[in-house]
Amino acid sequence: MASYNNEPARNPNMTINCKEPFNAEPPTTVLREHFVTPNDQFYIRNHAPVPSLDGRTHRVTVDGLVPRPLELTAEQLRTWFPQATVMATLMCAGNRRTEMSAIKQVRGVVWGHAAVSNAIWRGPRLRDVLLMAGIEKLESRWEDLHVDFEGVDVCKEDRGYGSSIPLLKALDPRGDAIVALEMNGSELPRDHGYPMRIVVPGVVGARSVKWLKSISVLGHESTNYFQKRDYKLFLPHVDWDTIDDWWEKSPSIQEIPVQAAATRPQQGEAITPGTPYTIKGYALSGGGRKIIRVDVSLDGGKRWDVARLFTKVNENQTKANTKWSWEFWEFPVKAFPAPCEVVVRAWDDASNTMPDDISSIWNLRGVLNNSWVRIKVPAKAKI
Amino acid sequence: MASYNNEPARNPNMTINCKEPFNAEPPTTVLREHFVTPNDQFYIRNHAPVPSLDGRTHRVTVDGLVPRPLELTAEQLRTWFPQATVMATLMCAGNRRTEMSAIKQVRGVVWGHAAVSNAIWRGPRLRDVLLMAGIEKLESRWEDLHVDFEGVDVCKEDRGYGSSIPLLKALDPRGDAIVALEMNGSELPRDHGYPMRIVVPGVVGARSVKWLKSISVLGHESTNYFQKRDYKLFLPHVDWDTIDDWWEKSPSIQEIPVQAAATRPQQGEAITPGTPYTIKGYALSGGGRKIIRVDVSLDGGKRWDVARLFTKVNENQTKANTKWSWEFWEFPVKAFPAPCEVVVRAWDDASNTMPDDISSIWNLRGVLNNSWVRIKVPAKAKI
Repeated sequence: MASYNNEPARNPNMTINCKEPFNAEPPTTVLREHFVTPNDQFYIRNHAPVPSLDGRTHRVTVDGLVPRPLELTAEQLRTWFPQATVMATLMCAGNRRTEMSAIKQVRGVVWGHAAVSNAIWRGPRLRDVLLMAGIEKLESRWEDLHVDFEGVDVCKEDRGYGSSIPLLKALDPRGDAIVALEMNGSELPRDHGYPMRIVVPGVVGARSVKWLKSISVLGHESTNYFQKRDYKLFLPHVDWDTIDDWWEKSPSIQEIPVQAAATRPQQGEAITPGTPYTIKGYALSGGGRKIIRVDVSLDGGKRWDVARLFTKVNENQTKANTKWSWEFWEFPVKAFPAPCEVVVRAWDDASNTMPDDISSIWNLRGVLNNSWVRIKVPAKAKI
Repeated sequence: MASYNNEPARNPNMTINCKEPFNAEPPTTVLREHFVTPNDQFYIRNHAPVPSLDGRTHRVTVDGLVPRPLELTAEQLRTWFPQATVMATLMCAGNRRTEMSAIKQVRGVVWGHAAVSNAIWRGPRLRDVLLMAGIEKLESRWEDLHVDFEGVDVCKEDRGYGSSIPLLKALDPRGDAIVALEMNGSELPRDHGYPMRIVVPGVVGARSVKWLKSISVLGHESTNYFQKRDYKLFLPHVDWDTIDDWWEKSPSIQEIPVQAAATRPQQGEAITPGTPYTIKGYALSGGGRKIIRVDVSLDGGKRWDVARLFTKVNENQTKANTKWSWEFWEFPVKAFPAPCEVVVRAWDDASNTMPDDISSIWNLRGVLNNSWVRIKVPAKAKI
């Protein structure tokens, strides 16, 4: 086990949910200020000490079933392949876990609702790297294959952190999976995988492996702990005594379901009755599905109205493809009816929406809480 | 307006929900007997009298923005292009509408939960037809274009029935959209579009236009009534007095959300307490997303267990790609606890699940009811 003596410097404003391994999220108001999250405010989900790699000499291997195994440095990844620029929101499967624990305690890093951030990533397409390794020779088997990623970070649960995705996702010309070398125009920060990481848009963050050591084409999904024993969704009644029956038959999480959160008001924030107030938040869905509607209710979910959706990109970013990014939304209220319960739900372009009842999706790992957002808003006493 | 004097013969077992235009669904027990639905038991959703076309002379035009407009007979579609075989389940957006009307009356054809069926379709890929029409010349604009389909059937609401899909769906090599000439190994029955129809797998049935007259590439979605005024999902509070404000800002339904139904027991069917009983049903999701789990509860949704999923294909069908087909499921109960409420929900591989509360998704057109399936099961009195 490496030690925690050589961790990078971090923005002191981040809310630290776990120190070793380091897990932190930005304040939600800060999160919602930037459509593209600044690097030092992007949520950090580590499973081990942060590796300290030499960006000039570190190599990623491309192996497994590929006919032409490769070893590539960052410089080769940058110069041998066309570079793709992909705006993609990553979300941790544990986002909004705290709300789940409020129903019944779950095991896992405590997250508020800011374990999600958006960045512009740049690097070669995973597709092109796999084509150089001869993947077209396996075309008849593509549907059955997986691409396994392993990082340099050695975790207490397993060897290097690892995960896999279906090969077809990696090869989809419009799937935008890349080997990222840059994040928002800079080299990757150490906390985000320097010198190279995978970014798989539309898929749960756990599959976007950092400090990338190997890319392996396999006939089965990754056997890594974080694919086979974690990042799975269990039934509400499964507990730690019975979970062994469920590991194998529970599929690994891939694409994320439709999700939303409000960043304003905060839970329990008091508002003066009858005053104007603008409710704000974000929404996103997996698989490249866009958010088509965000509904807001001020009476606990009886009457719904529609929030305004917008993609806030500056001039340099307007040409970016926003297919993989979250949406921001706002809902101005002329005369706020505090006390009340604000409820929020989003819909994606496959007409999927969020479940009403958190207890019906409760699971002992506390993953994928995308139940209706419910915020109790007391009345602020007039002075 | 054509008349209803020349309708085809139909299987007398079908449940007729509307006679003119003809709309019918099979008995749900029959539906669940056949993984591939026989042609004469496939649900029929018509909007006008059934056209009577000459399969030798009828032509479809391919026009709009394409550089090389075409006119093609069924024979040309069969011989000029490779033929694709696609198993695809089609579902009407109004499936399970009756349950919605039980909350508050909706407007539309009354459907039980059998407005869904599965067939093996065969014909050229829409992609290949559009490539012959020169679509590659428009590549820089693909993301903004739509493909409009119009049928010969003249509806009281509009000219020929019409609809559109995003061009990218039509061109996706793995999207499997076809111009179908055959259904389960026979020429198309008149009720299902003879001599040619569109089949768009993973998308609501309304876009799979029958008795196809034209395929047009447009810079905007179809302006047809059935794209702009129907098959949209509205908020629960929108009524016929306020709907005019909502037509334009409500997106047209494309991919279907995760859905399930039980075919056994039927609503209100009494079961002898303590006897063995196998609950059965189907589940499906849109966009090629597979069903990963069907949960069944015998106590109204408090405790859930997992049903067995299976794809029932015979020897000739085992090679069929089942990516676009429904799943069958069954849940054997050793000692049935009647009286009780059976509740069913499905999950797809993007971890989307069905909404709990039907009233929160109620809409005045009664579309996309995919709320939890709830079946009241009384105890059968012992004789």
